[in-house]
Amino acid sequence: MTIAISTAVVICFLLHVTSKDRMSIQLLKSHTCYGGTVAFWSHASASTQTEMRFSTFIPECGIECVQGALIWLSGLTCTEENAMSKAGAQQHLAKHHMMMICPDTSPRGLNLPHEHDAYDFGSGAGFYVDATTEGYRDHYNMYSYIVNDVVGLLRTYFKINVPVSISGHSMGGHGALTIGLKHPELFASISAFSPITQPSQSAWGQKALSGYLSNDPVSWRNYDSCALLDSGHTHPHSILIDQGLDDEFYPAQLRTAEFEATCDRAKQSCIINYQANYDHSYYFIATFMKQHIEFHARAQESHL
Amino acid sequence: MTIAISTAVVICFLLHVTSKDRMSIQLLKSHTCYGGTVAFWSHASASTQTEMRFSTFIPECGIECVQGALIWLSGLTCTEENAMSKAGAQQHLAKHHMMMICPDTSPRGLNLPHEHDAYDFGSGAGFYVDATTEGYRDHYNMYSYIVNDVVGLLRTYFKINVPVSISGHSMGGHGALTIGLKHPELFASISAFSPITQPSQSAWGQKALSGYLSNDPVSWRNYDSCALLDSGHTHPHSILIDQGLDDEFYPAQLRTAEFEATCDRAKQSCIINYQANYDHSYYFIATFMKQHIEFHARAQESHL
Repeated sequence: MTIAISTAVVICFLLHVTSKDRMSIQLLKSHTCYGGTVAFWSHASASTQTEMRFSTFIPECGIECVQGALIWLSGLTCTEENAMSKAGAQQHLAKHHMMMICPDTSPRGLNLPHEHDAYDFGSGAGFYVDATTEGYRDHYNMYSYIVNDVVGLLRTYFKINVPVSISGHSMGGHGALTIGLKHPELFASISAFSPITQPSQSAWGQKALSGYLSNDPVSWRNYDSCALLDSGHTHPHSILIDQGLDDEFYPAQLRTAEFEATCDRAKQSCIINYQANYDHSYYFIATFMKQHIEFHARAQESHL
Repeated sequence: MTIAISTAVVICFLLHVTSKDRMSIQLLKSHTCYGGTVAFWSHASASTQTEMRFSTFIPECGIECVQGALIWLSGLTCTEENAMSKAGAQQHLAKHHMMMICPDTSPRGLNLPHEHDAYDFGSGAGFYVDATTEGYRDHYNMYSYIVNDVVGLLRTYFKINVPVSISGHSMGGHGALTIGLKHPELFASISAFSPITQPSQSAWGQKALSGYLSNDPVSWRNYDSCALLDSGHTHPHSILIDQGLDDEFYPAQLRTAEFEATCDRAKQSCIINYQANYDHSYYFIATFMKQHIEFHARAQESHL
């Protein structure tokens, strides 16, 4: 193992000694993959007040030649590992000289009331909001974590000075849509697989939003992509969505048609591919990952 | 979920009603992937006297157009799921109209002495032998399970009437090499990632072989690819191996150089690619899976 991590240790060392902000960041392990490096890291997050983990893929040519970056937000129950091990993204990222960063889906190591009771709330289910409810508001700030910590890591620690895009799956698709729509200045393009597009109107969303934001539907609108579009948040680039038609959570939890109608109303360009026979799994994501990375590569190129 | 499995349910039904041997086989779940179908199954095994699980990938064109099949044997701690979810094989299998079947790595649901004590013996570590030690001999017959049950499933249940090849990783690479060398009549070609090539001389192998076969090194030779080559077992086709040079188990557990020297001595053609910077993980396997599937596709084409 000590020999295996040598490449990433060098990257880590070079990044560290040249970093102006000497953030507390540790390399946990790394693997060579498609010529590049998959690495797993932990760092102290200002947003969550916990240690947070994330993974990265840096193509073979290294940080210096990276032409774009992709933030991938995972879905319920996932960690920083799922997309890196199952989405098959590395071959396409390598081709387009694109870096990917995959954060964990919630703070860990806490023991808040009901935090570990269910798969769809608390640990593994941060929903990319800044919580306001007691206990959760001190740590469950995954919206700020993505916008400040993760974007900050890319810019300051990894020295990425190229366009960044955002994508994700299910709960992470919701994160990509809401964060991307609120921050067109940060992201060149947005895509999603099977996103929860209107959480204020679905069971998963209502449970999470009421738990993190209390029973105040007005505050929920700040984390609902349809409500954001309706209140004037749009992105200058088209949004790409792939949605399987045999997805066990479609349409009730995902409400793709409502998102499509809202885009029409808000004049937000979007491409929604409804894929017959595909479900909600990473087998679906892996199948269409190539097209999503090509989509972001084209958007980033025109953004430069 | 009920909608998502419809394609595989149809396949299962068609296979079942047309099968001469009405084996007890159940479809557990399925996912569309790269146009084809990933499915998970259980069946009653005559070799292990237990329920066994396996997974399959059948390309979009269906069983009728499959031009070859690949048996994939996984390594220590794995189940029938690891390769299917992490190896990224489906895109290449789809291209070559190849079916893949991935068996579990040991019987399950038993409680033999010391069966669950360690990651490298017992459950998840069947080592592709027919055990002779008490308790284990009644169930741990993974050699017969592959040669009889799995090949039988392909021929009788899935109606595969095309060349079959065999590959695997680590302990599964050992399985592919030993089973392939003993049965050139069954397999068009053999490949392996980071295989345990000489288990009688490595710590993993010695622990497993003594546990399953007792402390009788003569009987171990029947499950040692180097010993098999030395005793005249060869395969008419070249054997392909990829071995990472940053593999934490290389060279001590894997003994690749000894296998290479034995191939030379035995006039067994083999291609061993030593890959700088790569380790023992599925990130390594996914990187070179394309080349292995192309290798088997070429061998199967010339075998027809």
